[in-house]
Amino acid sequence: MRARVTVRVPGSTSNLGAGFDCVGVAVDRWLSVSATTGTGKTITVERRGTLTALDVPPDADLLCRGFVAACAKAGRSVPSGLALVADSEIPVARGLGSSAAATVAGAAAATALLGLELDRDDLTALCAELEGHPDNVAPAVHGGANLVLPPVPPDGGPIVASLVIHESLALVFAVPDFTVETKRARAVLPATLPHGQAVQAAAKGAALVQGLAHADGRLLAAALDDVLHVPFRVPLVPGYAEVTAAARTAGAYGATLSGSGPTVVAVTPAARAGAVGEAMVGAWRARGTSAQSFVTARPAGGFETR
Amino acid sequence: MRARVTVRVPGSTSNLGAGFDCVGVAVDRWLSVSATTGTGKTITVERRGTLTALDVPPDADLLCRGFVAACAKAGRSVPSGLALVADSEIPVARGLGSSAAATVAGAAAATALLGLELDRDDLTALCAELEGHPDNVAPAVHGGANLVLPPVPPDGGPIVASLVIHESLALVFAVPDFTVETKRARAVLPATLPHGQAVQAAAKGAALVQGLAHADGRLLAAALDDVLHVPFRVPLVPGYAEVTAAARTAGAYGATLSGSGPTVVAVTPAARAGAVGEAMVGAWRARGTSAQSFVTARPAGGFETR
Repeated sequence: MRARVTVRVPGSTSNLGAGFDCVGVAVDRWLSVSATTGTGKTITVERRGTLTALDVPPDADLLCRGFVAACAKAGRSVPSGLALVADSEIPVARGLGSSAAATVAGAAAATALLGLELDRDDLTALCAELEGHPDNVAPAVHGGANLVLPPVPPDGGPIVASLVIHESLALVFAVPDFTVETKRARAVLPATLPHGQAVQAAAKGAALVQGLAHADGRLLAAALDDVLHVPFRVPLVPGYAEVTAAARTAGAYGATLSGSGPTVVAVTPAARAGAVGEAMVGAWRARGTSAQSFVTARPAGGFETR
Repeated sequence: MRARVTVRVPGSTSNLGAGFDCVGVAVDRWLSVSATTGTGKTITVERRGTLTALDVPPDADLLCRGFVAACAKAGRSVPSGLALVADSEIPVARGLGSSAAATVAGAAAATALLGLELDRDDLTALCAELEGHPDNVAPAVHGGANLVLPPVPPDGGPIVASLVIHESLALVFAVPDFTVETKRARAVLPATLPHGQAVQAAAKGAALVQGLAHADGRLLAAALDDVLHVPFRVPLVPGYAEVTAAARTAGAYGATLSGSGPTVVAVTPAARAGAVGEAMVGAWRARGTSAQSFVTARPAGGFETR
């Protein structure tokens, strides 16, 4: 007997400057996965995509791993003859949480298909451990803007709190046509920082939460000017200085890397979103890099099943 | 001709764990200063006090410096025959912003007495530069809970944003009968930190703002468990571990040093404030240290003139 579900999982932007490894926002770019059992096949994954035309490895492995891990967590075996078909709008290796979305999609598909007793908190904990980026997993699962802190024993899962983004703000993304591997972006971080820089990081982390909630442009400008990771990753993203400067000139409060880049995200008054997107794409084009922009006026919701 | 004003300036607690050097809250302990001109004297400062009976240097110098600096900023000379009488409830050298309050009191008294054209932002910038702790100066001037970031040139003053503290929360202080000099507490900080610790600091800074605004106990617990300064200052505050543990056991979300200590401040559901204060004082007493507690249910207002 065949059974089939479809899940739809949003991409996400993490860090937002000062919120390195702890802030993530669901964005309006989606991964859809259809899972079908009883196909008579072993596990197969087919991938289609719109923004993923580049020759980069698909997240098929993560999709399967998410599926298998959810089954294992619930003490169930993986059904035979499983076919997964993925169709994604989330650019891969661009700092938009495609890996987290794939992991969540696999686990959520298993949960829906097999009626597993795993709630969204369970799925967050499971996928965060599996994929390693709780700040992308939490928005993929719960939607919205999230502050994510490490688990406190004996509790198993990360602490996830819902952040407020003031309704006058929009996030604007510019996605260039090159990739940055997260692993490489992680390897460039230094082992230590001057104490004063860590102090700045804490103040900017506070400024990010306050600035997003109250649309405080002074705080957002400070928060998006990160000291923990962006300065070390800029060499991996040619054009970063020009693109972020163009965003600010066009009216953004500030701009920074989305995740570990190369996508640049600007936080801007909603009324300036279109102009900011054009300015960022234009700045990249002026360097011979093509790029696409999109706007997330409100954070996307979490995964949906049907 | 004699002229006279009285100003009343609140003490403040700074840092609140993760908000090192950037978060300050006005507390309900006040410094009152009467300034009188035409007394026929040169500048004199008299100091009375309730909680300041210890043999520590009074902040007379800062009071005068604040007065003189405000006059200089406004291009006016210091009036002759000036007498300043200070009466303080703010414990000195205990991490409750007595130095910032004294500086602000001097500058505010000059402003009122001489009708100087200095607004609260001017006084914040002036006193922060003079005294060196904008996170204590901002609450002394503006009242409330404040997030304070460094000035962004060409603007002169620090960025001050008003933080929300959820109405169900209270701050509870336990003030022991020994002192810690801020200079010494600053000298124990390390030159560098592991990168991972700086990352934690940013997350905790974000958690502090979000936790205070929404009374999120999980976030407050994380935010009050600081990694930037408290671990290095604990040796200067005998009893710190016992007092903070007692606060948590009595129902506080967490506890940490107020400023650079030795006062310990707990963030707690308001209904537990009394019990938390008693528990902290009891923990110190068990070590042979006498201590006094007080509660700030709502942040105090900024300085008042009459």
